[in-house]
Amino acid sequence: MTKYNPVTPEIAERLKEICGAPYVIYNDAERLEPYSRDEIPGTHYRRMPEVVVRPDTTDRVAAIMRLANSELIPVTPRGAGSGLSGGAVPVFGGIVMAMDRFNKVVELDTANMTITVEPGVIANDVNEYLKPHGLFYAGYPMSVEMCQIGGNVAENAGGGKAVKYGVTSRYVLGLEMVLPDGRVLNLGGKLLKDVTGYNLIPLMTGSEGTLGVFTKIILKVIPRPRFQHDLLALFSTRDQAVAAVPAMITGTGITPVSIEFMDGEAFRQGCRWLNDPLPLGRAGAILLVSVDGNDPGTLADQCEALGVYLRREGADEIYAADTKAESERIWKIRRSIPEAFSQLYPRQSGEDIVVPCASIPDVVTKCGELARKYGVAIPCYGHAGDGNVHSRVCAPADWSDEKWDETLPVLLRELYAEVARLGGRISGEHGIGCKRKPYMETVVSREYLDTLRAIKNALDPNGIMNPGKIF
Amino acid sequence: MTKYNPVTPEIAERLKEICGAPYVIYNDAERLEPYSRDEIPGTHYRRMPEVVVRPDTTDRVAAIMRLANSELIPVTPRGAGSGLSGGAVPVFGGIVMAMDRFNKVVELDTANMTITVEPGVIANDVNEYLKPHGLFYAGYPMSVEMCQIGGNVAENAGGGKAVKYGVTSRYVLGLEMVLPDGRVLNLGGKLLKDVTGYNLIPLMTGSEGTLGVFTKIILKVIPRPRFQHDLLALFSTRDQAVAAVPAMITGTGITPVSIEFMDGEAFRQGCRWLNDPLPLGRAGAILLVSVDGNDPGTLADQCEALGVYLRREGADEIYAADTKAESERIWKIRRSIPEAFSQLYPRQSGEDIVVPCASIPDVVTKCGELARKYGVAIPCYGHAGDGNVHSRVCAPADWSDEKWDETLPVLLRELYAEVARLGGRISGEHGIGCKRKPYMETVVSREYLDTLRAIKNALDPNGIMNPGKIF
Repeated sequence: MTKYNPVTPEIAERLKEICGAPYVIYNDAERLEPYSRDEIPGTHYRRMPEVVVRPDTTDRVAAIMRLANSELIPVTPRGAGSGLSGGAVPVFGGIVMAMDRFNKVVELDTANMTITVEPGVIANDVNEYLKPHGLFYAGYPMSVEMCQIGGNVAENAGGGKAVKYGVTSRYVLGLEMVLPDGRVLNLGGKLLKDVTGYNLIPLMTGSEGTLGVFTKIILKVIPRPRFQHDLLALFSTRDQAVAAVPAMITGTGITPVSIEFMDGEAFRQGCRWLNDPLPLGRAGAILLVSVDGNDPGTLADQCEALGVYLRREGADEIYAADTKAESERIWKIRRSIPEAFSQLYPRQSGEDIVVPCASIPDVVTKCGELARKYGVAIPCYGHAGDGNVHSRVCAPADWSDEKWDETLPVLLRELYAEVARLGGRISGEHGIGCKRKPYMETVVSREYLDTLRAIKNALDPNGIMNPGKIF
Repeated sequence: MTKYNPVTPEIAERLKEICGAPYVIYNDAERLEPYSRDEIPGTHYRRMPEVVVRPDTTDRVAAIMRLANSELIPVTPRGAGSGLSGGAVPVFGGIVMAMDRFNKVVELDTANMTITVEPGVIANDVNEYLKPHGLFYAGYPMSVEMCQIGGNVAENAGGGKAVKYGVTSRYVLGLEMVLPDGRVLNLGGKLLKDVTGYNLIPLMTGSEGTLGVFTKIILKVIPRPRFQHDLLALFSTRDQAVAAVPAMITGTGITPVSIEFMDGEAFRQGCRWLNDPLPLGRAGAILLVSVDGNDPGTLADQCEALGVYLRREGADEIYAADTKAESERIWKIRRSIPEAFSQLYPRQSGEDIVVPCASIPDVVTKCGELARKYGVAIPCYGHAGDGNVHSRVCAPADWSDEKWDETLPVLLRELYAEVARLGGRISGEHGIGCKRKPYMETVVSREYLDTLRAIKNALDPNGIMNPGKIF
């Protein structure tokens, strides 16, 4: 294991020379503290950086990396800090490199249908920028209003539209990145196809900042679909709701944009958080199914076909939302669930399990069993159309920290063993970070981990890029 | 550079013990010869293997790799040999590992919409297998009737449907592969999302057999679109035809399945080869635009909208093909072009340039200039919807080998310099292999090549996996 060096006052001075003094935070605990955490509830995964730098050019990022590499100081790149796996937390202290000043849209190329952005641009702002041009970037993490594109690429963010549009990596056509030793690597371009050498873009996308720092990103954009229709289907039990998903997809042959699953508890907490008295009080589980396109007639037909299957699979009631306002009302509730739970339970763990779609009922059933066995609540919600279930393990208010710290790992190992048995993995979109690192062996092989380490060592021999993550 | 050892009679014996004697070809030039080449026209890139092995189980592949790795003997995996970059040619002799006996469909999982196949299954057979289930694998290389899935994955094959459906890598959900040292690595699964560690599947897909041998492949399948309509648009000049493509896509907001470009010469040679007297004699260039879906009315509307733009951009005539027979007649001509040219010119080089879509007119114009400057023919055809142009450099029949060998590299460097200036690359779907290896520096950076080599060395320190390719 690498022995890292501390950030001395001399190093801090050199960082100020590179970045400009106003953009270096050192020796100021209060201003460093916000960089010690991400959005994981609780304090367990926090760790203070020794220094924060906020560079604004590729040259400055490269100079910082060269310095850090020669001095053996760890560097943790950071976007908006909206992550849920500790990816932006500086586990070994050292330098946090905040990318918020890389906040420019570099170029919109309508002829090639690409947009080139710096990594600190907010995901939602990309779409606001594209809207007047009738174009659309299909990434849609639930934190879309605050998260930064660089973080989306580093984590290969998924989100609400992945069933139809895939995840972030499908849209990353080009990357400029600074390697751990300070060299600048350009990958891809405005190209829809390219087999000129290994495809390194999907390797870097989702590498959680462990292989380099992105400084420019070329995204593919597509024609903006003009209409979206949403169906809200209410079921008595969550088993019924999740079982309806594969039946509906294979039965209709329609690929919805989204198929979101919320059990009754999750949905009610989202409503409570927003003070929205949506009158769905007694449903045991809800599916939110969305289709989009340019022809309202086709969308209405699709909703009807989907509705037939939802009823056949046991939906008690189905509501249709075919205006922007109704749609946004429902989606806002869905997006609020994580925050609602964060505020409600002092001790909880947000899970990000992914399984083959047809196995969703098994994993949700397992969560019910584990909740009973360990005396906790495990509400479930998530992206049922792609097998990604956000089970949320919540301890009763009267549990002690000790009881929680003892119980959670045992419960998780039991849950993950079932996930592995089903051919699933422990993260569909949040990443491994430091939070899930201890559990990697439960779902992947030694050969896989050894291969990851071989690649990491080849590209970052000193181990300074975001250490303590993934493996 | 690694010094490889020869395949001695003792090594051949050990290979026979592993594979069974009938599945090892040794000391038999006539039976070894078919494994010395792929579909590149001419004899320049041929090289005889010392031995051919045809294993049928993962254990046998692993045993061969362990032997080859300890004895420092190069191993070149081979599918159908339908490649166009020398990827399956054993540049350093040694072992050719033919995967044709890995020819089983392992499992169709309709609930999860996946099919698990061995690498030696023919691409077209996957779709024949899926048809009765209303399902569809979207890979469609022009050699679909002979190429094997393993080769498609190794080369990240593109083909005719990439505009809408993307290339092979979008459909590879899981891989079982044998690493150069004989360890078996399992990647992915029946998962639509997964960020549990680096995403190694797209790194392996398109790595041209230089990082390991695939032994099992899990592919995503989708609902089979029930109808396809094709438009054949005739233009006076090829500049007009290629310029129509970006205008049509951005103007209509429609994503066709395919937008194939053929200049008049290419199309006429395809017709001649098939003895098909399609009456399009005087057109300078042709676009073949296809849309698919489940509703014939919507398809007709889309064809009309596309037709408006094609006419506006200068199409003289537009023919519609809305029956399977008409559609297949046109596509068969398109697929026959490479073979027609192969037979026609004794000295030729099939190019696989890819550029940003809006730059297709520039690169086609450049081909015209180069043809005049060097006194050769450069007919162009290819996948205009994704920027992938197959220019075919053809020498007049009276050129000597010497003149050809002198002229071609000079011409290609001039062409590739223009491709690089446009932000393009030298291969969109055929791969680098040994054919394009000398030209890598014309379009990619030293940092990129160094990064590829670092990864290669980390995973294949002895350099025995398909050496002499890419870098």
